[in-house]
Amino acid sequence: MEKKAIVVGAGLVGSLWSIFLAQRGYKVDIYERRSDMRKEGFVGGRSINLAMSTRGWKALEKAGIAEEIKADAIAMDGRMMHAVNGETTFQPYGKEGQAIYSVSRGGLNLALINIADKHPLVNFHFDHKVSKVDKKSGSLQVTSEGITSTADASLIFGTDGAFSSVRASLQRTPRFDYQQDYLDHGYKELEIPAGPNGSFLIEKNALHIWPRGHFMLIALPNSSGSFTCTLFLPFEGPQSFEQLKTNDAIQTFFETYFADALALIPDLVKDFHENPTSTLVTIRCNPWVYKDKICLLGDSSHAIVPFYGQGMNSGFEDCTVLDEMLSEFDEDWTKTLSAFNETRIPDANAIADLALRNFIEMRDLVGDEDFLLRKKIAAWLHDKYPDRFIPLYSQVTFTHIPYSKALAEGRRQDQLFEKILAIENIHQDWKTEKVIQVFEAWEKEN
Amino acid sequence: MEKKAIVVGAGLVGSLWSIFLAQRGYKVDIYERRSDMRKEGFVGGRSINLAMSTRGWKALEKAGIAEEIKADAIAMDGRMMHAVNGETTFQPYGKEGQAIYSVSRGGLNLALINIADKHPLVNFHFDHKVSKVDKKSGSLQVTSEGITSTADASLIFGTDGAFSSVRASLQRTPRFDYQQDYLDHGYKELEIPAGPNGSFLIEKNALHIWPRGHFMLIALPNSSGSFTCTLFLPFEGPQSFEQLKTNDAIQTFFETYFADALALIPDLVKDFHENPTSTLVTIRCNPWVYKDKICLLGDSSHAIVPFYGQGMNSGFEDCTVLDEMLSEFDEDWTKTLSAFNETRIPDANAIADLALRNFIEMRDLVGDEDFLLRKKIAAWLHDKYPDRFIPLYSQVTFTHIPYSKALAEGRRQDQLFEKILAIENIHQDWKTEKVIQVFEAWEKEN
Repeated sequence: MEKKAIVVGAGLVGSLWSIFLAQRGYKVDIYERRSDMRKEGFVGGRSINLAMSTRGWKALEKAGIAEEIKADAIAMDGRMMHAVNGETTFQPYGKEGQAIYSVSRGGLNLALINIADKHPLVNFHFDHKVSKVDKKSGSLQVTSEGITSTADASLIFGTDGAFSSVRASLQRTPRFDYQQDYLDHGYKELEIPAGPNGSFLIEKNALHIWPRGHFMLIALPNSSGSFTCTLFLPFEGPQSFEQLKTNDAIQTFFETYFADALALIPDLVKDFHENPTSTLVTIRCNPWVYKDKICLLGDSSHAIVPFYGQGMNSGFEDCTVLDEMLSEFDEDWTKTLSAFNETRIPDANAIADLALRNFIEMRDLVGDEDFLLRKKIAAWLHDKYPDRFIPLYSQVTFTHIPYSKALAEGRRQDQLFEKILAIENIHQDWKTEKVIQVFEAWEKEN
Repeated sequence: MEKKAIVVGAGLVGSLWSIFLAQRGYKVDIYERRSDMRKEGFVGGRSINLAMSTRGWKALEKAGIAEEIKADAIAMDGRMMHAVNGETTFQPYGKEGQAIYSVSRGGLNLALINIADKHPLVNFHFDHKVSKVDKKSGSLQVTSEGITSTADASLIFGTDGAFSSVRASLQRTPRFDYQQDYLDHGYKELEIPAGPNGSFLIEKNALHIWPRGHFMLIALPNSSGSFTCTLFLPFEGPQSFEQLKTNDAIQTFFETYFADALALIPDLVKDFHENPTSTLVTIRCNPWVYKDKICLLGDSSHAIVPFYGQGMNSGFEDCTVLDEMLSEFDEDWTKTLSAFNETRIPDANAIADLALRNFIEMRDLVGDEDFLLRKKIAAWLHDKYPDRFIPLYSQVTFTHIPYSKALAEGRRQDQLFEKILAIENIHQDWKTEKVIQVFEAWEKEN
């Protein structure tokens, strides 16, 4: 049989997966609804920066572009919290030398398309909209310039994002479980421009957070010296997008809650009106595959909210996991897709849950005394027993431990810290033998 | 403004709701994808009989056809359980005189269409497929005989079932939460024909259940003397549809688990092959409404599994609740639809949960000693204190108490019976003062 595949969607995961397929000797046709971004230019204003971490880097190494991307990425060693009064506190993400990396979504996508396009087996078809997939025959309806034709392939990959038309076709078939859940919050992008000579006006190597309970502002550095800011805010309610319709209301809101940031965002009111207010959705489904023919990857099967910085990382990990399984099963697609479906869905559900949970942490808990102490004790334990205790955040961000295992372990860690934080005078003195005893007792229980 | 509405789908809920609208003076156009069942005849083989109960009757009374339907319905006073050895046990559903009624889905749909069609304000358009709804403009794309046209109305009701195209249009708009979950079980219809002269070969006034743990067979009486049987069975696994591909396998399966029923189903093997194996889905979504323009009713917004006999009843109750709210808000549709959305979604979620939970009860617990004792004690308490204690099943089936309230009360009843069943020697002697004491203490707590 000819080694041939169709990939629907030339976003981050689709472009990357095409490279993996071509490396295995598959002829790949990629259909992309949008125009070639290399001609059109990248349209900003709708996409928060990406935070690349260990799972993402692994996939890029395999694709051979990790170094190129890293050259332009900015290490974020921790969170910089901004209190209402302007005071800042820094919380490292991991151990010395561990960081997540701020990467431009557009730049990364461009690099992936370029590297895929260089491969003689990969063919891009931009401005081609896939409207329907017939799972039994394995054929697609593709429309370009008003003309609809049919494309066939024994293998079809749906990497067409949260509103995937490949998934929409599967959704109409029996026994396809599907769920889309929106947050009551939306988000809007704003910008802190670079200072003189491309300087950074706030700490460069940090992810900045202005946590305000039910809402928050964040900022990620760009290599140009600017920061991409994102405001997460409820659509309705006392503090909400609904309330911020006038210039005055916007200005007052920022003066009240984000005074230090306001001073750095010159185009606040203009950007606020011009940039869209976007939604935040979690998508889950089952199955992701159909026999040896169809497979969904990335957001098309598991879109998540951005609060753990794992959306792109988990999509990229889909590619490495699927690639490893293909080797394990000697490219028997029936066995591979079945195994992928079996193990990967629980992992995707776990990171979806973790991302929702981290929203509460970011906007609410990062200022909480107990929470901050817990973070400190966790780092201390991890430092003392690097293999015996890995904090949940580190497992997700700096290892390849399956998400579902990390989530389960995180729940056990919650129990540990409940006990530790109940120790008398723990806030006064926490580097104690008592903490070690509680830790060792907990370790034995598990 | 002209009082005008479009109803999409001429099934049970759509036909009924058209009658309600016409009674309020609205001109109604109903678009139905299928042909007129009055010409085509009703196609069986895919639909278990309906069990009409209090909520359903209320809506039919309002439509003026309760008596006509009741004349052809068969009262089922309780469950008749069939053990593997053929022994039967009867469990009344409620108090003396309380029953649920076996009704033919086709017959009921026909009666509703006829009564709606008699109304000069109602116009049926059969063989008209609605493919798209534009919520902003309030227009529909309707295709009939290959010609697609646009229909407009200030009011659109989606009563087009679990695979609703009105809902599918809403689903593609931001902030629409949606969930479809399939059971691992499917179902298949079979038939016990009438005996000589239309006689009933098993107890007429009962819903028959052959509970077998992970699967079950049920039978509901028809006025002709026959019974419509439904086999609920996993799709895959040791006892499953997947295993029942040959005549021998089917025959042996029924001999092993349903010997007494097998003797009454002459066409078992033929029907088993010819009738489809259907799926069981739960659908939830939010919102059900759009401003003052669009409203989903019945399965289109809340399809549930059939194990509480409340699918049609809850859809009919949608109509009575919405109609009552219209009176309350003087036909202000913005206020009405908003209030309907607010209160009805939690009720729909509650009956969805209850229906899933009842599957376990029906297939597994109806043979359990503790469960049977609980049912007896519940009936005794209800008899003793008719207003102070109403069993969950009776609340759902024989009252208009909102489903969400019934579910919450059911959870409290679980706590009561945990305490009662923990009383020493309760299985030997349960009509005791001790039970009353536990009940009264529980009552005070709540």
